[in-house]
Amino acid sequence: MNLVGEISIVLVEPSHPGNIGAVARAAKTMGIENLVLVNPKQFPDRQATVRAADAADVLDHALVCTSLGDAVRQCTFVAGTSARTRGLPCLQIAPRELGRQVWHELERGPVAIVFGRESSGLSNEEMDLCHSATTIPSVSSLNLAAAVQVICYEIFMAAPQRGSFPGSTGSGDVLAASGELELLFEHLQAALLEIEFLDPKQPRQLMRRLRRLYHRARLTQVEVNILRGILSATRKAASR
Amino acid sequence: MNLVGEISIVLVEPSHPGNIGAVARAAKTMGIENLVLVNPKQFPDRQATVRAADAADVLDHALVCTSLGDAVRQCTFVAGTSARTRGLPCLQIAPRELGRQVWHELERGPVAIVFGRESSGLSNEEMDLCHSATTIPSVSSLNLAAAVQVICYEIFMAAPQRGSFPGSTGSGDVLAASGELELLFEHLQAALLEIEFLDPKQPRQLMRRLRRLYHRARLTQVEVNILRGILSATRKAASR
Repeated sequence: MNLVGEISIVLVEPSHPGNIGAVARAAKTMGIENLVLVNPKQFPDRQATVRAADAADVLDHALVCTSLGDAVRQCTFVAGTSARTRGLPCLQIAPRELGRQVWHELERGPVAIVFGRESSGLSNEEMDLCHSATTIPSVSSLNLAAAVQVICYEIFMAAPQRGSFPGSTGSGDVLAASGELELLFEHLQAALLEIEFLDPKQPRQLMRRLRRLYHRARLTQVEVNILRGILSATRKAASR
Repeated sequence: MNLVGEISIVLVEPSHPGNIGAVARAAKTMGIENLVLVNPKQFPDRQATVRAADAADVLDHALVCTSLGDAVRQCTFVAGTSARTRGLPCLQIAPRELGRQVWHELERGPVAIVFGRESSGLSNEEMDLCHSATTIPSVSSLNLAAAVQVICYEIFMAAPQRGSFPGSTGSGDVLAASGELELLFEHLQAALLEIEFLDPKQPRQLMRRLRRLYHRARLTQVEVNILRGILSATRKAASR
């Protein structure tokens, strides 16, 4: 199986079509050809095609979605990239480590690497969907295609057939996909409201913390089922 | 002494002014601000300035030469880059190795990293001026600015003062100590019994799974407090 085909580059609201083309080219130089666009400002666009050069086929096959949740629903590992480090504890992975991690994760399911807007990166809500955050070390921030180039280069460099490949950590358990995790978080929020732990007017901050916590743990499907079992039992007990 | 100031990026006959600007930006993100242009087709140029964005100052200070020999005259180490490997035996250095080599060489004198034409790279005569040749591993060739970005990234990553990249955790939050986790697990078990999720005769297996899950997440003290708050609210709701 061609595992590299299970890697997607996801761009959230790219505002310049030229950047989309440059990203397609950057990714393709490293063998990554799946591009997903979340609400692109302008696409398809001639500028995108021009900048893509030999990677016009990547643009032809690009998927367009209306939310990041839709874009990553099938993925078992969602890696966010960010120009700055965030306040909440999220698993921080350096680009080189991410390159290795991606190949490890590909053994368990599809992987998405998510890049934010040119101007403002990813929102907190979008980071909530990510299992990890990667910041490219630099003295000032890279443009979008340059960031994609560096990350894809690290992934390419870490490809198993190229050499260095770290041993695996986890069990053979099946990881929960992003869509399954979202159902868990909905269930969790409902239960927390029911036991009156969550302020219905301000659920965000606490839910965000809990998301980050569970994303860090890389939940398996079995664990998601257990946690949802606990939540069902909680709601039942609370309504007795 | 600021050794990074002794590194120059040399472009041989760049044909698109936009590429010169993009190269300036790419280099500057990694702290490299010396740009030397050998017979640029068009420079200065508005397209260059536009693509340089915040790196317009790098263009302002760029040197223009009429031969590669002039451009690298002061340098004690000249590293050529090439999209293909050459017939003649030249010291081949991978990008990662080049990053390290550069810092070693800087102790002895100025360093030039030489990039060839967009279309045809460096001539054999130009390679003759280089101490080494570096090819970026890829499945197809990178554009000029992307190649500069990758090489400058490797140089930046190898900078001695950077040391090893700070892995994991991210925030400055204090991790929970083992004793605090044990109190959490006791609390969890009590709550699960109360909501009748846990079989009192067989609590072990499930508790082990949950412990493993939370251990993987590397909980902070704040998170332990939140989880215990949830457990208290759960018990309160169950006994209403």
